[in-house]
Amino acid sequence: MSNKASIGVTGLAVMGRNLARNLARHGHTVALHNRSEQRTRDLVEQFGDEGDFIPAYSAQEFVDALERPRQIVIMVKAGAPTDAVIEEFAPLLEKGDVIVDAGNAHFADTRRREAALREQGLHFVGTGVSGGEEGALHGPSIMPGGSKESYESLGPLFEDISAKVDGVPCCTHIGPDGAGHFVKMVHNGIEYADMQLIAESFDLLRGGLGYEPAQIADVFRTWNTGRLDSYLIEITAQVLAHTDAATGRPFVDVVADQAEQKGTGRWTVQIGLDLGVPISGIAEAVFARSLSGSANLRAASRGLPGPSRTPLTGAAAESFADDVERALYASKIVAYAQGFNQIQAGGAEYGWDIDLGAVAKIWRGGCIIRAKFLDDVTAAYTAEPGLPTLLTSGDFRKAVEEAQDSWRSVVATAVRLGIPTPGFSTALAYYDGLRAERLPAALVQGQRDFFGAHTYRRVDREGSFHTEWATEERAEHEA
Amino acid sequence: MSNKASIGVTGLAVMGRNLARNLARHGHTVALHNRSEQRTRDLVEQFGDEGDFIPAYSAQEFVDALERPRQIVIMVKAGAPTDAVIEEFAPLLEKGDVIVDAGNAHFADTRRREAALREQGLHFVGTGVSGGEEGALHGPSIMPGGSKESYESLGPLFEDISAKVDGVPCCTHIGPDGAGHFVKMVHNGIEYADMQLIAESFDLLRGGLGYEPAQIADVFRTWNTGRLDSYLIEITAQVLAHTDAATGRPFVDVVADQAEQKGTGRWTVQIGLDLGVPISGIAEAVFARSLSGSANLRAASRGLPGPSRTPLTGAAAESFADDVERALYASKIVAYAQGFNQIQAGGAEYGWDIDLGAVAKIWRGGCIIRAKFLDDVTAAYTAEPGLPTLLTSGDFRKAVEEAQDSWRSVVATAVRLGIPTPGFSTALAYYDGLRAERLPAALVQGQRDFFGAHTYRRVDREGSFHTEWATEERAEHEA
Repeated sequence: MSNKASIGVTGLAVMGRNLARNLARHGHTVALHNRSEQRTRDLVEQFGDEGDFIPAYSAQEFVDALERPRQIVIMVKAGAPTDAVIEEFAPLLEKGDVIVDAGNAHFADTRRREAALREQGLHFVGTGVSGGEEGALHGPSIMPGGSKESYESLGPLFEDISAKVDGVPCCTHIGPDGAGHFVKMVHNGIEYADMQLIAESFDLLRGGLGYEPAQIADVFRTWNTGRLDSYLIEITAQVLAHTDAATGRPFVDVVADQAEQKGTGRWTVQIGLDLGVPISGIAEAVFARSLSGSANLRAASRGLPGPSRTPLTGAAAESFADDVERALYASKIVAYAQGFNQIQAGGAEYGWDIDLGAVAKIWRGGCIIRAKFLDDVTAAYTAEPGLPTLLTSGDFRKAVEEAQDSWRSVVATAVRLGIPTPGFSTALAYYDGLRAERLPAALVQGQRDFFGAHTYRRVDREGSFHTEWATEERAEHEA
Repeated sequence: MSNKASIGVTGLAVMGRNLARNLARHGHTVALHNRSEQRTRDLVEQFGDEGDFIPAYSAQEFVDALERPRQIVIMVKAGAPTDAVIEEFAPLLEKGDVIVDAGNAHFADTRRREAALREQGLHFVGTGVSGGEEGALHGPSIMPGGSKESYESLGPLFEDISAKVDGVPCCTHIGPDGAGHFVKMVHNGIEYADMQLIAESFDLLRGGLGYEPAQIADVFRTWNTGRLDSYLIEITAQVLAHTDAATGRPFVDVVADQAEQKGTGRWTVQIGLDLGVPISGIAEAVFARSLSGSANLRAASRGLPGPSRTPLTGAAAESFADDVERALYASKIVAYAQGFNQIQAGGAEYGWDIDLGAVAKIWRGGCIIRAKFLDDVTAAYTAEPGLPTLLTSGDFRKAVEEAQDSWRSVVATAVRLGIPTPGFSTALAYYDGLRAERLPAALVQGQRDFFGAHTYRRVDREGSFHTEWATEERAEHEA
């Protein structure tokens, strides 16, 4: 054994620090570097007994502390700071060395950086790391892109420190260049959708049944023992059960109801639009956050007319929580189906050849959307790697079939009671759009041909056609 | 009078040719230029008697044919071709001359070009032109950005050739640099939403009442005599009434039901996301088009379980067409409210100081979304330029109030019959979101604080707070 480090981490804020500690705890010698020296010293002082650290106080010292091929993990802010660190280290590295960006970079930046560093003979690995601070320390879900060669040296380390589910590491090589950051972006988009659906379920149970947050926490706790078993449902129950110490009121009632949308959620939708993939569930979740944060608009609109939230009674009330569970599960399947289709489309667009089953598998642990549900997603894509949509796969198809009445009744109830359910509604509209024999898009094509001579295709013949709308005969002809 | 041209047009495909003819028909001498000479010769040969044209067969000749300050309208493809033409002409121009880009450029490109040309002492005007070929020839709606100074010379010409409503030209100076192209982009986004809502109405009338397209054409024709009076409703009636000559079937049934989404509709949503404005109506319209075009996905999903479209009977059937009209009108108000809010946000972001009433006013004629409705929008913003949302303005508020039962009943019916109405649904969800006293975004903030220590604000105190979720006490403290 050399007394050099097998990997180095630069950028020792909480995420970088925890990744470094996780690596050291697993027996890997970790070189440490940070722009300001104090963070490096603090880490060694506070956590030095957790493993073997080699603190470095200059870029050269850091590089010199590493075994070949050198592996440097950058954990700094996305954007210009990441470029600055790359520019600092690249000249000090040699052919075959590996730079890893473990931040939340836009995959297009990762593609650009990978191409530039490849020119210099360096491997650049953009990797998604999900699970927050706790995940970084105890086992995140890791989504590395970059070359296969880089994964040969890096993979074993990352698999070692990742979360494990049934002994399987939550880390796999996603694909070349930006594939890792792309998949992490969609992960976050799905997280937005999942959280929005849970939030709507809470709102429905409250408005539809008049439940208090603590009662709703119980409902979520029960759901968490079934097919909805997931980290997000679990923490939802905890958040809802929590009482604010200062006021004695339910915690959720003292929190300002204004969420933020930025970064990866927004990017997911923007890229979905570029790829032409309908990811309306993620989009509605992002918009629901913007709406919630539009304080002036909401203040001006509070008095707008509409129904008040009269709780259900009788049989409708009896079955409502179960109905919401089914509607939530069906809507969740739609949200994931859309997200996985986006990954499929991104893979096709950029030539990444992504194994969707492997993606679902490494999301089963470590990350925010970890869920029992992902076992079934893994199985679905393992059985049929080219599956056009999760909705048609065995168990999911069955679940949406069984959910039909509940799903429709819940959305209709929301509409009647005036409870906004953009996530549930768009999931159902997407579902009905997919299964429709004919869509009114035919009319849209007719309109476009009328006002802009955009032409249309026909159901009975190949080719592009145009109708002479301005003439009396209105003859159709090939365009 | 000099024998020079008061304006020149380069790029003589159909849009450029028709703009040039429109200018000449209004008595303006127009210099003509095109990359390939033939188009220039053709225009003079075919339409030379419509007015005074000065054909030019080189860039220098074109520039020399123009009065000072020279005004050159570029009508070529957006992107690189536009840059190429600018690079060709800019060196030949002098301080104070004006280059107009009348294509569908992205407003960010327009900002970049305006800044670069301003450095050279030239005015660059990115202008929206709506109304297609026919509009360009007979009177479009024109949305010029750029400097106030440029509008002094250009404005009178553009106002002269624009559509007129009650004698008022459908052209106004929108604001500096990219403001014109931004407003045109949102115009097109609203057009997407409007078309989608109309398409859903058609689908509802067909599925809910079992009407044939010709009957539905009659319904639209009736609607077009009321508050929905608009170009899009008018042409919808014509498209639906049309019989395909080859098959004798309703035209709309022989058109492939796959629409396209690209360009300005997609940009509108992407920019809406950047600005944090919830424009879900436009987004759902764009996604509905992508979904319709996802042929493999739809083919795989056709057998998914769900209700069949059993037409309504009795009283529900009696009132259904009226209900759909009310739901359509209310949803349309939402779509426009979202679009105008995006213009407001863009104006604030880029310091454009856009007069929303003036924008509504120039959309009343010439453009695809021209509608009687826009008289009321104009009035609303004229009465209150800082109106937070159209929904709260007198007549619109009244209309959504009267539409409540119908709107909700139509969405509930769609959900029950399995007719996809993403546009109607999102409009209603947005409406209910806006008027909600509390949104479940509070739960989302709680979740985010739990898993990512993202902090939250409180309803009862200023500041950012964090709860120590991992500890037993779970104390809240200022972050």
